Order: sequence, then structure tokens, then C-alpha cells
Amino acid sequence: MKLEEYAPGEIEKRSFAIIEEELGRELDPVQKPIIKRVIHTTADFSYADTLFFSEGAVEEGLNALRSGVSIVTDTNMGKAGINKKKLGQLGGSVHCFMADEDVAEKASRLGITRAAVSMEKAAEMQEDFIFAIGNAPTALIRLYELIKEGRIHPRLIIGVPVGFVNVAEAKELILTAGVPVIVARGRKGGSNVAAAICNALLYQL
Amino acid sequence: MKLEEYAPGEIEKRSFAIIEEELGRELDPVQKPIIKRVIHTTADFSYADTLFFSEGAVEEGLNALRSGVSIVTDTNMGKAGINKKKLGQLGGSVHCFMADEDVAEKASRLGITRAAVSMEKAAEMQEDFIFAIGNAPTALIRLYELIKEGRIHPRLIIGVPVGFVNVAEAKELILTAGVPVIVARGRKGGSNVAAAICNALLYQL
Repeated sequence: MKLEEYAPGEIEKRSFAIIEEELGRELDPVQKPIIKRVIHTTADFSYADTLFFSEGAVEEGLNALRSGVSIVTDTNMGKAGINKKKLGQLGGSVHCFMADEDVAEKASRLGITRAAVSMEKAAEMQEDFIFAIGNAPTALIRLYELIKEGRIHPRLIIGVPVGFVNVAEAKELILTAGVPVIVARGRKGGSNVAAAICNALLYQL
Repeated sequence: MKLEEYAPGEIEKRSFAIIEEELGRELDPVQKPIIKRVIHTTADFSYADTLFFSEGAVEEGLNALRSGVSIVTDTNMGKAGINKKKLGQLGGSVHCFMADEDVAEKASRLGITRAAVSMEKAAEMQEDFIFAIGNAPTALIRLYELIKEGRIHPRLIIGVPVGFVNVAEAKELILTAGVPVIVARGRKGGSNVAAAICNALLYQL
């Protein structure tokens, strides 16, 4: 076994160099830090092909974070993974409503997912948000509907749920919502990917 | 866009059916629930080839959980993803020492990673643990050393860090430690994978 010797902190730098080398092609400079961090988080180079950025999405996300906009996510894993210290320095925080009692009650009463109800709860707060959706396609579908009804105006939607049922379709739907989006097309994604994209934005500020 | 209609809760069932169908081969019945849940979490079928189980590892993990053994993990994301309600019903809990002040202080003083120090902290507690390592290869390396020094006796090590530097090597090392292991060989893994494996065990109890 060959273990390389690195000081803590150097490993990430070396990892990013390996990723860049193995990618073997130039990425869009605005998208590059995000694509590289997602590959760093997953060791999966297919994200270089599946990550889709709507025109100006990265800039809009950076502007929003810079002005203290908070992030709404659909899992407590995503919340745990987002760098809350950095976000807090900018004036933002992370919300996850999935475990809230009112959300559970309403979801059960209406026979819909807690993720969909969480998006409604965010809409009712009438606040600017970035959405980081790593798990529930129903969150994206409800967001699409709320946008079309004029009830919510997301500054950026990071749409990267993972899964086999309605996931790829929900991601294609949110692409047509007319708001800034960063989406991992297809089945792959996850809370870790959602957090990685948030952090890739945060680390540029 | 074609969205299928499912009640909340049915989606997971349908997803597992798709995974089984697309896998197109029979898995070892003991390993199957774990492999399927990891694919469910990642949408990445390559785990069917890379997940390695030492002889009796699943049974040992189930026995440990059944008797109330706690889980030590190397990220707060992993901690967030593990079903703590189910684990608590069995008598266990989840520890993550990464953000502890004493860990940060010792890591900085010795110039080693907080993950390595976290494993030492677990060893000092002289308690039975399952380790779920989704991020830091240095955690696996330190665990290997502590096992060889007779200072720690893990009931099971879930060794699934993700990354490009020392990760595949650290996973090969832990395979030789002589304790029950479930390892994702190669570069891939993550906190989400670590949590998925813990949950796949918990949901059988």
C-alpha cells in the first residue's frame, strides 16, 4: 500500500488537481468551481456532463448569497453539509422544514409529501430564498407550481434530487420555470451534491 | 413530461423494484438490502461491484445494533442521515466528534487531521462501537493503527470515504485489519453512502 504524505488541508488541493487533470478538458470558468466541487464530493466525473446551468445562474446565486439571502433545503443532511459559518458571515442561514410538526400534519392531512408542504411553508414566509433540493422531486414540482402561480420568486434553485421515480422528469420541469437553476440532469444527485454546490458558491465569496 | 402518480411512501417501493430489475442479476441475500439501498441513495449501479463485505460483517453489524451498540461517524452529514429514532429504539446513538473543541485543539497541536483524533477519542471511551466513515481516509488509517495496537475493537467498520488522495489505499488497508468491514472499494463513497448502509442495517431490525 502506498500512502502519500500530506498535511491536513493539502489533500483537498491535491484532489482538485487530480480532478482537473483527469477531466482533460476546459470547463466554463464560471461553472468550473461548482463542477469540480461536485466531482470532489462524489468521485463521479459524469457530473461534468449532466450539470446544467441556466444563463447567469451562478452570478445570481453569488449575488443572492452576497446580499444575505438564506437557503431552504429539503433534507437535514443537506443542512448539515452546507457551510453555515460562511453563510452566516454573509447574513444568511439554512432552513429545513421537513421535520416541522406543522409540515408533517399538513402533509398527512392532504396526502402529499412533506417536501411539497415545505415549499409552501417557504412561500408563505415571503422572503428571498435559494432552494437546494437534493432529495425530493415533489419539492421541485411544487416549486414549479408556486412559481407559475406567482407565489414564490426563488433567487436560485439548485435542483439535484437523486432517484428513479419522477426525478429526471421533475428536473426537466424545473428547467422551464423561468428562474435561475443549476440542475443535475438524469437520476443522479443527492443532499451531498446540493450541499457541495452551495459550498462551491459560498467559497467564492 | 410524464410524471407518474404515487402516494408518499410508494415511491421508495417502486424505486427498489426498478433497481432490482435493472441490476438484472441475483445478489447475495444478506448483502442485497445494503447494496440496493446504496444504489437508491446514489443512483449509481457501480456500487453493486465495488461494495465488499467481509465474512459475517452484516450479521455482526445487525447483532451489534440489536444489542444497543452506538455508531461513530466522521461527519455531521452522516450523523444527520442516520435514522436516529430507529437506532434509539434499539438503545444506540450516533456520535460525531469532528466539531468538538478538544478534537480541534489536539489535531492542530499534533498537525494531524481531526478525523484521526476523533478515532482516538472513540478509543478512549472504551465502548463497543460501529464506525461509519464516509469522508476521511485518515480516520480509517488511524482505526487500523488503533486496532493493531489493541486499543480499539470495532464491532463493524463501514469504510466508505470518497476521494482521490489516499482513499482507495486506506480502504484496502482497513480490509486487512481483521475486524468486520463493509467497504466501497475505489474512490467512490460518501457520508450519504455511510448513512445509507447504517439505515439498511437498521431497517432490518
